[in-house]
Amino acid sequence: MTLDDCRRLDAQDTLAPLRNQFILPEGVIYLDGNSLGVLPKAVPERIAAVIAQEWGEGLIRSWNSAGWFDLPQRLGDKVARLIGASPGEVVCTDSTSINLYKVLFAALSQVLQAREAATGGNDKRRVVLSERSNFPTDLYIAESLCRERGFSLRLVDVSELSTALTDEVAVLMLTHVNYRTGAMHDMEAVTTAAHAVGALTVWDLAHSAGAVPVALNDSNADYAIGCGYKYLNGGPGAPAFVWVHARHASQFQQPLSGWWGHAAPFEFTPHYRPAAGVARYLCGTQPIIALVALECGLDTVLAADSFSGGLGSMAVLRRKSLALTDAFIALVEARCPGRFSLITPRDHLLRGSQVCLALSDGGPGAYAIVQALIARGVIGDFRAGDSQMPDILRFGFTPLYLGFEDVWNAVEHIVQVVEREEWKRPEFNQKLAVT
Amino acid sequence: MTLDDCRRLDAQDTLAPLRNQFILPEGVIYLDGNSLGVLPKAVPERIAAVIAQEWGEGLIRSWNSAGWFDLPQRLGDKVARLIGASPGEVVCTDSTSINLYKVLFAALSQVLQAREAATGGNDKRRVVLSERSNFPTDLYIAESLCRERGFSLRLVDVSELSTALTDEVAVLMLTHVNYRTGAMHDMEAVTTAAHAVGALTVWDLAHSAGAVPVALNDSNADYAIGCGYKYLNGGPGAPAFVWVHARHASQFQQPLSGWWGHAAPFEFTPHYRPAAGVARYLCGTQPIIALVALECGLDTVLAADSFSGGLGSMAVLRRKSLALTDAFIALVEARCPGRFSLITPRDHLLRGSQVCLALSDGGPGAYAIVQALIARGVIGDFRAGDSQMPDILRFGFTPLYLGFEDVWNAVEHIVQVVEREEWKRPEFNQKLAVT
Repeated sequence: MTLDDCRRLDAQDTLAPLRNQFILPEGVIYLDGNSLGVLPKAVPERIAAVIAQEWGEGLIRSWNSAGWFDLPQRLGDKVARLIGASPGEVVCTDSTSINLYKVLFAALSQVLQAREAATGGNDKRRVVLSERSNFPTDLYIAESLCRERGFSLRLVDVSELSTALTDEVAVLMLTHVNYRTGAMHDMEAVTTAAHAVGALTVWDLAHSAGAVPVALNDSNADYAIGCGYKYLNGGPGAPAFVWVHARHASQFQQPLSGWWGHAAPFEFTPHYRPAAGVARYLCGTQPIIALVALECGLDTVLAADSFSGGLGSMAVLRRKSLALTDAFIALVEARCPGRFSLITPRDHLLRGSQVCLALSDGGPGAYAIVQALIARGVIGDFRAGDSQMPDILRFGFTPLYLGFEDVWNAVEHIVQVVEREEWKRPEFNQKLAVT
Repeated sequence: MTLDDCRRLDAQDTLAPLRNQFILPEGVIYLDGNSLGVLPKAVPERIAAVIAQEWGEGLIRSWNSAGWFDLPQRLGDKVARLIGASPGEVVCTDSTSINLYKVLFAALSQVLQAREAATGGNDKRRVVLSERSNFPTDLYIAESLCRERGFSLRLVDVSELSTALTDEVAVLMLTHVNYRTGAMHDMEAVTTAAHAVGALTVWDLAHSAGAVPVALNDSNADYAIGCGYKYLNGGPGAPAFVWVHARHASQFQQPLSGWWGHAAPFEFTPHYRPAAGVARYLCGTQPIIALVALECGLDTVLAADSFSGGLGSMAVLRRKSLALTDAFIALVEARCPGRFSLITPRDHLLRGSQVCLALSDGGPGAYAIVQALIARGVIGDFRAGDSQMPDILRFGFTPLYLGFEDVWNAVEHIVQVVEREEWKRPEFNQKLAVT
């Protein structure tokens, strides 16, 4: 693959116009949309209007006149189109960690209720099963809830998941695409296997929503949550989302029973009565400006719909995402032979929308190479290794705003950083507070 | 009191220049700053810069370079100055409801731990005590936690509080200034009484922070939470705040144990280790744009500092707030004699920064009068009555941007709406979804 090949692929790319939806800094190749998506062009004007007209002029009246109160549902319906859910099944609210607490609590309530209902019920079912390499905040929340509610959290390697899935498992809690490796689970197969032993599934879609096709209802999943500021381009710390399968949504309560999840919040009654459906997963008043920015981000992803010939945004975005990551892998392997090991699965069925590399020699340069690349305007990120996993160079590929020439140029920079040993400079070896 | 008196008071008002910090709609007298504070002038430009430079240009690098990660603490230190807390004791994050869940959980953990530790410990201590007329979301959250953790929620009228404060009470959970009546508790006296029977105190400062002086440490309170979008002018759904007394802050865990509350979030370790102090009350990634807007709001209140002769913002704001509410009460009583009953306490020591009226004849016009006033640009709000309380017309007075002529004009509109029976028009009797 040559630079000309890349330019030809860009010229043939029917999704290329989608890049015009974004403001991209000069001289930057942004391979970190899996940490924070780039700025949609619509945001500055839309937010300025919300501030000046809706807040400044409308003031308290805007709860009605500007539809503020309906934003969690209106945005939820947009997210639903990207994750294989139906209208009314998703709300945008709070943070991913908090939403995980809500759904995992509800799932455990469901298990406890089944245990009480069944004469001779399965009292062994006391395990929340997850991957050791799951995103830490998910494990922290699960740790807390397990302690609170009399369950135990069992962490295994991904290769041990199928044998660990026994009738002791109450809930299988997984992140669909691993944040560090980019490896993707087969949601339908895993859900089927979990249900076969009587376990519920909780899926974290932080690295999936807007990145890969997700089919929650077709997979028969139980609960899901996800992030607004990665592939959904909702802005730093954008509100997250929560989905609950219709068969569960009105059956169980989540404990953060604030007034926004009440059946009639403005009756101000002293006792809690949960709203029907997923609206009960709302809690307190939401940051309106942040929700509006998220809506602009969601619209950038949904815009791919009109290029999809009826297949939907995620089908065409996925095709381009795989082509981009294939090209990146091929170019790294051809131009830096033997230098890097591929951590992300080569198999399309198991790959998210990112590519993770480790140094083949096991040396310590991964952090410094990432810093040297950032100094050159190629923004990826570094994830430290542990006993299970080497240090990782992580590159996210967002097909909405990346092209094949970007991939070529990114690899060209990697080649130069490595061949010139640029990464050995002291300034690239100082650790920052947040990486 | 005449219009000329009001103008004279405005001319003598040393805080009058503070109004220039805000963008106020033409033709509006805004008496609803206790629902949603008005727009600080600094917000549009500051948010535009955060969007264009920090998000758009800086992208993921802004977590370090723009100090995003420290915003909850940096803003918390500003809130601390308004509520009698010390630097490092407050964080701005999540919603009021969610923060209440965290602190009430921690307080109940403290009770349970004490019960286990004490041989012959007080096993009767199983009650969370609150007011029946507390803001509903507080009661909903408490209801959920009591059910979860084996406590019972006991709701009493405010007049019954002192007799209900027995050694069965684990936690006394109160809103400092009642959202509906504007009645204020004596925080120090109530806290002392609670501690005397061995109970902890949880204070909701939603209608206090930025409205009245609060002295959390001097009152020896235990836990507190509050709202960013009322008197703190942080914008619709602004993040809330949480304070924990230093003697408890590192002692107990809150259950929403997300990565932002971890001692070392970027070590990505699989087990949770809470940060020291109030930082452990953080959970997930926060909406940065919303936090920046809140900072602009906090700065509008702190700006009163320089007019205070060293007494601090809240001392001088309180003096003006009482003068405004005194004037409003006097004018309503003089100009609409016998028409309204005063629900808010006349006693300065018991009054928040709002005045609530009910119709003396017990008739149904309160809702329509509020709507007719809104149509005239006098924005207050309506709170429906119940078995304990009549329908209420609620008027919030924010001394930062209101003057005495505003008070005069507001009362003039009330006089006209009532005398002309304007409120009987059908359009003022249609209920809106959100009031």
